[in-house]
Amino acid sequence: MHFQRVLILLASLAVGSLATADEGMWLFNDPPLKLLKERHGFEPDAQWFAHLQHAAVRMNNGGSGSLVSSDGLVMTNHHVGADALQKLSTKERDLMRSSFYAKTRQEELKCPDSELNVLVSIEDVTQRVNAAVTAPAGSPEAERQRRAVMNQIEKQSTDQTGLRSDVVTLYQGGMYQLYRYKKYTDVRLVFAPEQDIAFFGGDPDNFEYPRYDLDICFFRVYENGRPAHTPQFLSWNPVSLKLDDLVFVAGNPGKTDRQNTLRHLEYLRDVSLPASLDLLRRREVLLTAFSQRSAENARRAKDLLLMYQNSRKARLGGLDGLQDPAVMARKRSEQDSLLDAAAKRPPLGDQCTAAVQSVDQSLKTLATIRVDFNLLEQGQAFDSELFTIARMLVRLAEETQKPNADRLREYRESNLESLRQELFSPAPIYADLQTELLADSLSMLVEQKGATNPLVQQVLNGKSPRQRAAELIAGTQLADVAVRRQLADGGPAAINASTDPMIQLARLVDKPARIVRTQFEQQVEEPMRQAYATLANARFALFGTEAYPDATFTLRLAFGLVKGYRENNQEFPAWTTLGGAYRHAAEHDNQEPFALPRSWLDRKGSLNLATPMNFVCTADIIGGNSGSPVVNRDGQLVGIIFDGNLASLVWDYEYTDQVGRATAVHGSAILEALRNIYRAGPLVDELTGSKP
Amino acid sequence: MHFQRVLILLASLAVGSLATADEGMWLFNDPPLKLLKERHGFEPDAQWFAHLQHAAVRMNNGGSGSLVSSDGLVMTNHHVGADALQKLSTKERDLMRSSFYAKTRQEELKCPDSELNVLVSIEDVTQRVNAAVTAPAGSPEAERQRRAVMNQIEKQSTDQTGLRSDVVTLYQGGMYQLYRYKKYTDVRLVFAPEQDIAFFGGDPDNFEYPRYDLDICFFRVYENGRPAHTPQFLSWNPVSLKLDDLVFVAGNPGKTDRQNTLRHLEYLRDVSLPASLDLLRRREVLLTAFSQRSAENARRAKDLLLMYQNSRKARLGGLDGLQDPAVMARKRSEQDSLLDAAAKRPPLGDQCTAAVQSVDQSLKTLATIRVDFNLLEQGQAFDSELFTIARMLVRLAEETQKPNADRLREYRESNLESLRQELFSPAPIYADLQTELLADSLSMLVEQKGATNPLVQQVLNGKSPRQRAAELIAGTQLADVAVRRQLADGGPAAINASTDPMIQLARLVDKPARIVRTQFEQQVEEPMRQAYATLANARFALFGTEAYPDATFTLRLAFGLVKGYRENNQEFPAWTTLGGAYRHAAEHDNQEPFALPRSWLDRKGSLNLATPMNFVCTADIIGGNSGSPVVNRDGQLVGIIFDGNLASLVWDYEYTDQVGRATAVHGSAILEALRNIYRAGPLVDELTGSKP
Repeated sequence: MHFQRVLILLASLAVGSLATADEGMWLFNDPPLKLLKERHGFEPDAQWFAHLQHAAVRMNNGGSGSLVSSDGLVMTNHHVGADALQKLSTKERDLMRSSFYAKTRQEELKCPDSELNVLVSIEDVTQRVNAAVTAPAGSPEAERQRRAVMNQIEKQSTDQTGLRSDVVTLYQGGMYQLYRYKKYTDVRLVFAPEQDIAFFGGDPDNFEYPRYDLDICFFRVYENGRPAHTPQFLSWNPVSLKLDDLVFVAGNPGKTDRQNTLRHLEYLRDVSLPASLDLLRRREVLLTAFSQRSAENARRAKDLLLMYQNSRKARLGGLDGLQDPAVMARKRSEQDSLLDAAAKRPPLGDQCTAAVQSVDQSLKTLATIRVDFNLLEQGQAFDSELFTIARMLVRLAEETQKPNADRLREYRESNLESLRQELFSPAPIYADLQTELLADSLSMLVEQKGATNPLVQQVLNGKSPRQRAAELIAGTQLADVAVRRQLADGGPAAINASTDPMIQLARLVDKPARIVRTQFEQQVEEPMRQAYATLANARFALFGTEAYPDATFTLRLAFGLVKGYRENNQEFPAWTTLGGAYRHAAEHDNQEPFALPRSWLDRKGSLNLATPMNFVCTADIIGGNSGSPVVNRDGQLVGIIFDGNLASLVWDYEYTDQVGRATAVHGSAILEALRNIYRAGPLVDELTGSKP
Repeated sequence: MHFQRVLILLASLAVGSLATADEGMWLFNDPPLKLLKERHGFEPDAQWFAHLQHAAVRMNNGGSGSLVSSDGLVMTNHHVGADALQKLSTKERDLMRSSFYAKTRQEELKCPDSELNVLVSIEDVTQRVNAAVTAPAGSPEAERQRRAVMNQIEKQSTDQTGLRSDVVTLYQGGMYQLYRYKKYTDVRLVFAPEQDIAFFGGDPDNFEYPRYDLDICFFRVYENGRPAHTPQFLSWNPVSLKLDDLVFVAGNPGKTDRQNTLRHLEYLRDVSLPASLDLLRRREVLLTAFSQRSAENARRAKDLLLMYQNSRKARLGGLDGLQDPAVMARKRSEQDSLLDAAAKRPPLGDQCTAAVQSVDQSLKTLATIRVDFNLLEQGQAFDSELFTIARMLVRLAEETQKPNADRLREYRESNLESLRQELFSPAPIYADLQTELLADSLSMLVEQKGATNPLVQQVLNGKSPRQRAAELIAGTQLADVAVRRQLADGGPAAINASTDPMIQLARLVDKPARIVRTQFEQQVEEPMRQAYATLANARFALFGTEAYPDATFTLRLAFGLVKGYRENNQEFPAWTTLGGAYRHAAEHDNQEPFALPRSWLDRKGSLNLATPMNFVCTADIIGGNSGSPVVNRDGQLVGIIFDGNLASLVWDYEYTDQVGRATAVHGSAILEALRNIYRAGPLVDELTGSKP
């Protein structure tokens, strides 16, 4: 599953990449026209790109999607919609297990806190940002000035246009662009298959191939209580894909590290990935044990557990790449080539050498603050939705007292509406699950900071981590949305007067958390940004070819061919079929996670088993691309990305297309299943434009 | 599950404890006569102890058991027998899933490599050991001299008596005793229930209470191809237990750390337990993912996965105790009391202070070598049975060239027979599972030592950990027992000439592994042993009461009362019933791991549901006690220990009986199930002495 959440990760620190083969996560306002023409003889016009851009959707919880009808119908992956499915589920109605289909608009289910964005326009603001930064490059003051001007640009844009406005840092500071989004917050569930077929094969098949997953679901966006009018949507391709067909992917890849210095990759390999994996495994074990206690426990933890398992497998794949001496040798040779070429063009050589050293220095600083940064500011020590809410309330009160320009980025004026939607979400919060997570993370705090640390002792308040977690979760009132609203409305006075133990905990740790955040932003992020901007500019100057920036969870275009591969003397076909799913299930005695749902067993006879189910292509994707539409030369929908194979997991660091592939659900399988398994005739009609 | 294997743990480093309440893991040659008389008015004679000692069995793979008939019938836990059950299983005959009952002797299944020990005699050799150690206390030479004399004493004893002979270090060097065992290596499976009832409730119920587990299985020991004659066996108690009945437990508790210095406990809390847990979780995640791929994968990994899950839950319980400020405050106060009392009795004060400092110093040294020690010498970097075999072959060739006195402990002459049984075991080895384990552990080697480490680079040989593991497992011939025998017979010449890649790997890492082992033994273990011996002697001198040494995986006697408890306003009964098992299953919709086996569902009607199933008592146990017989004042069998509750997990560090309890299968449930579920009449007759 190729999705991404704003997890426990350090901010993206990367820079522009030069393309080879079908590589590239291209900007829609700077598409690879030359490459498309030369490699594939394809010359789309501006209208072609604009249409795709306006039909592409960003799922704000991490993931992609597309508009697929003029009535606001959105298609994405089941695993991207899982967050909403989980929040809509109850003990009695488990949408993560059973299928759902709203035959009428009235039956569509409103999601508690979903936000979807459609990119409306892109405006370059590089000059404006750079002009506002008068302090020396890489200095703390430069960081403050940049944050101030970005907050300001966004606020003005939102005030003027009413659109969600984000200044996006591209090429790690080489370019700043203002992205304006149409924002939808009334999002309703239309259709979801059983999770057993959406994630058929489970963790064992995840990131592998061949696959047989119907990893889709449909939402509808509403405005003013009625389905939104969305004239820019993707129409369904009526014919099947052929081998070597050229396809395009429009989605929001989350984060790549392809232009990292060698030392930076080593840091990922030696420090941050292993630490991440330790945490992911510990939560996976915790949630698996919790889930085994009862069916209801399993239901409560399901989405979270899947996310941890998915991240674990993805990171293990990435780490496996970085631990491969051959991969690192190539990355070393790339860096050497750049430095060698730069050395022949003074002053580029000195600049690049200094930049590489500056990255080293930033990593050394990072190594000294990373434990505190992760525990306190990223909140790894307080892993509970209720703590997250408490911190939001505490910081909202403090930040909104400041001028917009001086606020922490996430409390900037233009982001408050999205933030409040999250803060006041009525999604259920389960005290038992929260207690387990918090106990485990408090225990980790003791492990990593030591039991004698004064802050740790204040946090534990004389209790063991387990006792303290139980006390905090039992004592807080923040599960009640009305209490949150009261505290938010009451501002700093209400926060300071609150006796809620979770609010008190959030206040206790806020100062040290802010201190280490400032250290991170000023001593790590800012100098690193400047260094990578220098390297990016040198690359442009030296090699001057078309390039794309590392991924930033914003809209990008990828392209590639529908193509199987050969690995370890085995042929992997370009696509699988519906019939293959039944064979795959039979090979595993139809046992979890290879159990086909009842509906598929019952209605096998009515399916055309030769229908293509999943296919692979060479398009360059990464986590965040999940749910991205795949279109043909005519811009028609032919499938939806949901995964990449194991060999694609190294694409975080380098793209190769010998065996690495993106994996998609084939459009034909979607229609076939909707028609003959789910009897969703009206939905098929809406997708294919045949009015009922 | 309270079992223990010789896992990834540091050697036991502990010392004598003073008893309170029903605390104590007492030596059979120094039983707590005064305590039993004063607290319980019980005055057993020497014969009482001797009978229990000779009927008690040590399962050499970690765990306890008892002789229960004169024809060599042995009862232990299913989870202790699981190692043998796993090795006897094939894809077609899964003894970890289905039940097994040999109606006749001919049907009994011979285990590939089981060894059972019965303690025959104990001889004090303290003077002989101490006299041989002439070098200064705590010096490297002292360590060598002690090892030499121990190897020698054992060799002489084995030569003279033909018995397995182990010098056991008690009170951490305050006492040395020669334990002689009757050794059984022809061990055959007689009966095992389905794992679903043996481990009913699975990981969620493990270490919790109430429980409903039939955690038993029966083996028979043979000599010269015929059932061994074992006149000293435990007879079955014909009447049921009552509340507050005094009971006794005879078993082999593995390791406790009750007399550790405060700093040593902090080291466990801050360093070794978190590191252990990281490793346990990483293997648990790996094996869970492997198991999900297919039923056959799950079968292959089952025993190993259960062991990791069990260890994880046990250690988490221990860590939870050490992270409880109240527990640590009590341990601090204990230590302060000792030092205060010692200060008033020169020169004890100075000696104790120096000893505490010496432990500190040893821990500092340990902290600097622990990563290498664990990776290289403990083999955490090469987690594969095939590597273990390769190392054994390499070291066997080298060590047997040396005089017995100079060898590594496990290659001493008196241990070679046991070692060869393990080395030439025909138990199946699965290449796919071995590859996964080795890849994961090589990856951990890279993480912990760094990719640029020269040894790491030699180990990987230019490959990624995954590629290298695949190459090693595919290339080695050591899965073939005949190849192992050839190499063992060929001695150093055969080893040096071998082109087997696993042998070559074992040779490559042997020197650095031996270096760090020597550092550990000389700079950590030896000085720590001396320091703890000083503290133990001071305790004797100051407090002079009856005391018991920390656990050493040798036979001990514990005692306590059959007693329920009250925790968090809830009453926990002293015992559960067979009927409760059915209710517990129904509450979980009879879903795994709460699924009762078919046989229990089918034959419910023929059971007396009021029969007691599991019970709790205050006897002092720990991992290794699994399978220990529980007997009454008359020395009759009333049950078998299989677990402790969550509150007992802190017993590693301190015993408390407010809510901590040992958990046992009730003898009545065993007979009732054998009779009415498994129709094992002849086995019941053998147990109850009613000849058929």
